[in-house]
Amino acid sequence: MSDFQHLLSQRTQSMQRNQIREILKVVSQPGMVSLAGGIPAEESFPIEAMYKINEAVLDRYGAAALQYDRTEGFAPFLEALAGYLAGKGITANPDELLVFNGSQNVLDTLGKVLLSPGDCIALESPSYLGALSAFGAYQPTYVSIASDEDGVLPEALESALERQAIKFIYLVTTFQNPTGRSMSRARRQQIADIIKRKNALVIEDDPYSDLRYHGEVVPALQTYAPDNTVYVSTLSKIFAPGLRLGFCLAPPLIREWLCTAKQGADLHSNSYAQALATEYICSGYINRQIPNIIALYAPRQAAMLEAMDAHIPAGYRWIKPEGGMFIWIEGPPDVDGEALYWRAVEQKVAFVPGKFFYIDPSEGLSTMRLNFTRVDEAAIKRAIATLGRVIREYSPD
Amino acid sequence: MSDFQHLLSQRTQSMQRNQIREILKVVSQPGMVSLAGGIPAEESFPIEAMYKINEAVLDRYGAAALQYDRTEGFAPFLEALAGYLAGKGITANPDELLVFNGSQNVLDTLGKVLLSPGDCIALESPSYLGALSAFGAYQPTYVSIASDEDGVLPEALESALERQAIKFIYLVTTFQNPTGRSMSRARRQQIADIIKRKNALVIEDDPYSDLRYHGEVVPALQTYAPDNTVYVSTLSKIFAPGLRLGFCLAPPLIREWLCTAKQGADLHSNSYAQALATEYICSGYINRQIPNIIALYAPRQAAMLEAMDAHIPAGYRWIKPEGGMFIWIEGPPDVDGEALYWRAVEQKVAFVPGKFFYIDPSEGLSTMRLNFTRVDEAAIKRAIATLGRVIREYSPD
Repeated sequence: MSDFQHLLSQRTQSMQRNQIREILKVVSQPGMVSLAGGIPAEESFPIEAMYKINEAVLDRYGAAALQYDRTEGFAPFLEALAGYLAGKGITANPDELLVFNGSQNVLDTLGKVLLSPGDCIALESPSYLGALSAFGAYQPTYVSIASDEDGVLPEALESALERQAIKFIYLVTTFQNPTGRSMSRARRQQIADIIKRKNALVIEDDPYSDLRYHGEVVPALQTYAPDNTVYVSTLSKIFAPGLRLGFCLAPPLIREWLCTAKQGADLHSNSYAQALATEYICSGYINRQIPNIIALYAPRQAAMLEAMDAHIPAGYRWIKPEGGMFIWIEGPPDVDGEALYWRAVEQKVAFVPGKFFYIDPSEGLSTMRLNFTRVDEAAIKRAIATLGRVIREYSPD
Repeated sequence: MSDFQHLLSQRTQSMQRNQIREILKVVSQPGMVSLAGGIPAEESFPIEAMYKINEAVLDRYGAAALQYDRTEGFAPFLEALAGYLAGKGITANPDELLVFNGSQNVLDTLGKVLLSPGDCIALESPSYLGALSAFGAYQPTYVSIASDEDGVLPEALESALERQAIKFIYLVTTFQNPTGRSMSRARRQQIADIIKRKNALVIEDDPYSDLRYHGEVVPALQTYAPDNTVYVSTLSKIFAPGLRLGFCLAPPLIREWLCTAKQGADLHSNSYAQALATEYICSGYINRQIPNIIALYAPRQAAMLEAMDAHIPAGYRWIKPEGGMFIWIEGPPDVDGEALYWRAVEQKVAFVPGKFFYIDPSEGLSTMRLNFTRVDEAAIKRAIATLGRVIREYSPD
């Protein structure tokens, strides 16, 4: 057997396997109630509709849905996406959009086009871990921007932009993963003013904004600073993640290079999946399905928050997001979230210790991320009661 | 409008747009007969079967075909691929395979995992252009290995491996794009002996071997040197390219890093497309469809070769491949293939000037690549008659 270690590139050394996967291996044990996931419920998929959607795609597009296609995306899908975005208040021509294999693939290609080794990315802290795994392959450095409940702090962002050259700022603006937090309307305006003034570039990752259970819609940061924002989104949370359909709306120069990079990387994204999504959007399935998904998730979130009020002891804090997939708990400073994790797992309840979402390994030690989308209300209530007991019985060393 | 030129990475400067696309823009003119393509005929897609395949996938896999999945690939598809490969004499366990978004995406990820800037790749000359566009993003250098009609020359490969450090050797071993050539059985053995002796790594790209119209099957190079080969293939030529399904069989260390890189780049490939392909393979559609595809293409190839014998003047040479999608013509040394291209285009016949498939811009100036898969026999005969006339009327300056 040959050893090819010497053939690996320098960049493989900065690729990281998902650390969370290691610790979560126990989650597949029988009887475990997992609040650790970050993925949609199977019941949220429009399986019955898929029979009709498939037929319509074959009838309408035939061979075009099976043939090679343009790198930019399947033309009817780009049209459909422009219409979908208009419904969110985002103005986009179809020819300003690019289709990718999920939003993860947009992040990877942005890294490829923008990052030379050592380049600096500004991140809110904590951050979406998948973005770090996409960017990490291009050997960047990171700077954390402090946040409060309304999102990244304007003064922290501004001083970071003044202190060093920053390639881009990466933000999940609405119902963030892992914290569930949303940037307030006023904060969006402040952040947009700064990035325009500094001619900075923001990557706004927006997978969750359609999953709003109450409260008022807040427009995308992109709408406040369209020339300075790459808006990234996905159909994974409102149609089906297995189809791997993400997309972006980017300033012209960046869009052009993203397209060139994508041509080299995989020619184009799956045309058949794009045709399915076109039918899903244009024949109105999406407008019936998003309310179904909300009707599934909103009671689960409510059940979790209610159970937390009843069972999680004083000293632990959480905000109550108006949507999304996560609740974020901050324990008292001396609590070790990973120690709590292992005790909870013994009691057959899993979550994700929040420390994994921080760049700085000394941060977030007392935090926990809880997901409510894949477990029903009764199981959520029991799991939170168990977690409350584990927390009360635990005393930091 | 902001100018973000200064934000681009060093690597974007080595990304090349497909030069062929520029010159081929005229091909979409009305009345043009294009022998320039490199893609399957629409009639080769199993559109009628797709209605049933879709239903079977939804019945059998349901939500699993729509949910997030493992990076490695959809488990039933990995099983199906192992069976398909066994039919080609290639021994693979499902857990030695990885699924990608077309074979282009395997090549890109191999570049990501193996290439640091300046690393050297050995290529047969001429080479598949898509591979250069995948590898190019990782800033390699290239060395051309001379070939004859049986494939790369053993002594040329051996001396290249001795002269410099070579990360890998990239070869399309059967019905190569652009030449249609196949490496002979004896040559495979010789090349395998060299790469094993030198502990070198070969990427064997094999998209065309199922499109064999006559002659005897030649086993993959992989079977002669399994520990030193990354075998890359695709369902694009035998099912549907729009589904973007490629895969590889790689030595363990390389497979492991490919999987880590893919996780960061797009989490996993489209599960729904993988489920469709599983059904296509396991329910026997593939065994009926490949003969249909051959029955479509073989007469087109025969018509082209026959018309060439009748119309292409002495001094022009070509081999007669036993399969694939291309015929390669070498004109006398003073012929300018691009000048011929523009004259042929005036007569409404397009092909690809062969010089685009060479690294060295001084090579292949008199060559032409002709595709026969997307045009029917009658149109092929007329087009070759026209091309013959263009050639006879052309005299090099």
